[in-house]
Amino acid sequence: MPTDPGTRTVSADDLFEFCVRALTAVGVGDADARTTADVLVTTDTWGVFTHGVKALGGYVRRLKGGGLRAAARPEVVASGPAWAVVDGHSALGMVTSVFAMRAAIEKARAGGIGYAGVRNSCHFGAAGYYANLAAAEGMIGLAMANDVPSVTGPGARGAITGSNPLAYAVPTGTGRPILLDMATSTAAGSKVAAAHAMGKAIPADWVVDRDGVPSTDPAAFLQGGALRPMAGHKGYGIALLIEVLAGVLTGAGMTRQIVPWIVGDPAVPTNHGAAFLAIDIAAFLPAEVFRRRIDALAEEIHTAPKAQGADRIYLPGEIEWERRERSLRDGIDLPPDVVASVAALSRELNIPLKGI
Amino acid sequence: MPTDPGTRTVSADDLFEFCVRALTAVGVGDADARTTADVLVTTDTWGVFTHGVKALGGYVRRLKGGGLRAAARPEVVASGPAWAVVDGHSALGMVTSVFAMRAAIEKARAGGIGYAGVRNSCHFGAAGYYANLAAAEGMIGLAMANDVPSVTGPGARGAITGSNPLAYAVPTGTGRPILLDMATSTAAGSKVAAAHAMGKAIPADWVVDRDGVPSTDPAAFLQGGALRPMAGHKGYGIALLIEVLAGVLTGAGMTRQIVPWIVGDPAVPTNHGAAFLAIDIAAFLPAEVFRRRIDALAEEIHTAPKAQGADRIYLPGEIEWERRERSLRDGIDLPPDVVASVAALSRELNIPLKGI
Repeated sequence: MPTDPGTRTVSADDLFEFCVRALTAVGVGDADARTTADVLVTTDTWGVFTHGVKALGGYVRRLKGGGLRAAARPEVVASGPAWAVVDGHSALGMVTSVFAMRAAIEKARAGGIGYAGVRNSCHFGAAGYYANLAAAEGMIGLAMANDVPSVTGPGARGAITGSNPLAYAVPTGTGRPILLDMATSTAAGSKVAAAHAMGKAIPADWVVDRDGVPSTDPAAFLQGGALRPMAGHKGYGIALLIEVLAGVLTGAGMTRQIVPWIVGDPAVPTNHGAAFLAIDIAAFLPAEVFRRRIDALAEEIHTAPKAQGADRIYLPGEIEWERRERSLRDGIDLPPDVVASVAALSRELNIPLKGI
Repeated sequence: MPTDPGTRTVSADDLFEFCVRALTAVGVGDADARTTADVLVTTDTWGVFTHGVKALGGYVRRLKGGGLRAAARPEVVASGPAWAVVDGHSALGMVTSVFAMRAAIEKARAGGIGYAGVRNSCHFGAAGYYANLAAAEGMIGLAMANDVPSVTGPGARGAITGSNPLAYAVPTGTGRPILLDMATSTAAGSKVAAAHAMGKAIPADWVVDRDGVPSTDPAAFLQGGALRPMAGHKGYGIALLIEVLAGVLTGAGMTRQIVPWIVGDPAVPTNHGAAFLAIDIAAFLPAEVFRRRIDALAEEIHTAPKAQGADRIYLPGEIEWERRERSLRDGIDLPPDVVASVAALSRELNIPLKGI
């Protein structure tokens, strides 16, 4: 039972069907709508509300505007023994990304490791979803994407890189992959926007204002400021690596060539790039040997001495998998900003959603 | 001309020959000695003194003790179309790592991308050296390694992961690759030790003491404390990914199975793991197209508005390449802790080094 007055609880199934109906209402085919709905609703079941169904209204706007093409099919336009380049032809970022990760998985099945680079994609939501597709096949998965600059770097006053996300997933013996999904900024821009929508202050290492001065006011970022890179020059450097793997190498838009997917002209393709890697564990060692090794590592971390005030040490993703279990059992407690976004879309398309 | 009284200037060539003589004096073959010397001296020309010739005395101790085997040959023990696993058989970490990165480069030449995992290696010095080998072949290179736990994580009181380094290199049109080499801790343990040796305080986000409390005293780390991960849970998560790619997947030692290379029994192999990735740019697009794209990205960053007090925005590695140019022209200004380490080895082996 949600305690925040603006929170609403919806069932994952209802939310999934809402997404499918919303997408098909603007011309997306049933299979692509289901693919996209699964990405978004899975993300919400993890409690990563900044990258879930909240974004659907923005995708619908781009589908209506033509910058996202409802009927486009992603296509492998070049490939080799262990790699492929996928042109999304401005299909939904989720459709193109699932297609590309499946291409990387196929390459890894044949060669041990596979890379798929992507151009002409769009915002792809939570990178961790795609990494997890590889883990479900017994593989180590990595997913990353570039984006329009929103993050400053050492010596710079304003934004010079995107908040370029990086996710990975590693299968374990418990059935719950180790799963990390992170922005290379200290915090994702959507988290700053969410804090702004809720009128909350943010930590001082999240953003700088338009003069490059650190600020605890989320509005400073929205009014011409920039995010700060995680760990200073290290986060800046990793963001550049992702720009290379997702953008420079793939022929996608780079930095300012990318159209901002929320505020940009909805008639113009965003041309995001992305990159997916899969490593087939079975090529290296028997699955049960890997499981024994990874589970021993997990056990060692779980049983390590705890810091004062901490009763658990979590593996990456463990919190999200526990939230997902609760979400599937009790419903998803959508926070107020997501409720507002979904309610507006429900009215706009005249598609009801139980609980909203 | 060095200004610090304990600093000494040596020529890169003299330092290289010193390393070769020191290694051959304890039984290493000429080719392996030259390989190792090039890794160490290149690292010092970059100004990364924590990972250069300073470490040579420790390797010599292990070679004498038998934990490092002077005559061992690294070997590909398993491979597939795009991957290889290399057993270092306790050869010098530099010898095994150069061998393994060359294996990854070969695989990438054939398949577009290549991964080489390593077991039975040792401390490999600066990860960036190996990444740069790929860049010299027109490829994107990544290098990483696991290590005995020295870094804490969210909820933990003490160390749970190694400071597991990650490096990458990307060729550019200027001939100077973009090159990042970083620990996944806020700072490398060797930097804390260097601060301790020089009696300097350290920033509060570098270490915790034995009770898990942040400290600015480098001794707190050396006396049972731990390093702190960069960017909190993100650095912890990336360290775990590296443990998986370098340790779990390769059959190397994991976490506490690894023997500390400095303080551990020199008769026992350390069994470090490592992982190398190469991506052949030419498989994806013509070299000149890639260069045009990467140089446009570099130019955009170089010309971005500067923060107050900054007159340049550096690409990763740019500072190191400029230091290397000066080092090769004017000699390497070795800091006092490196001078002391090299001088001790010079006396121990009775091998002179001009300038020391």
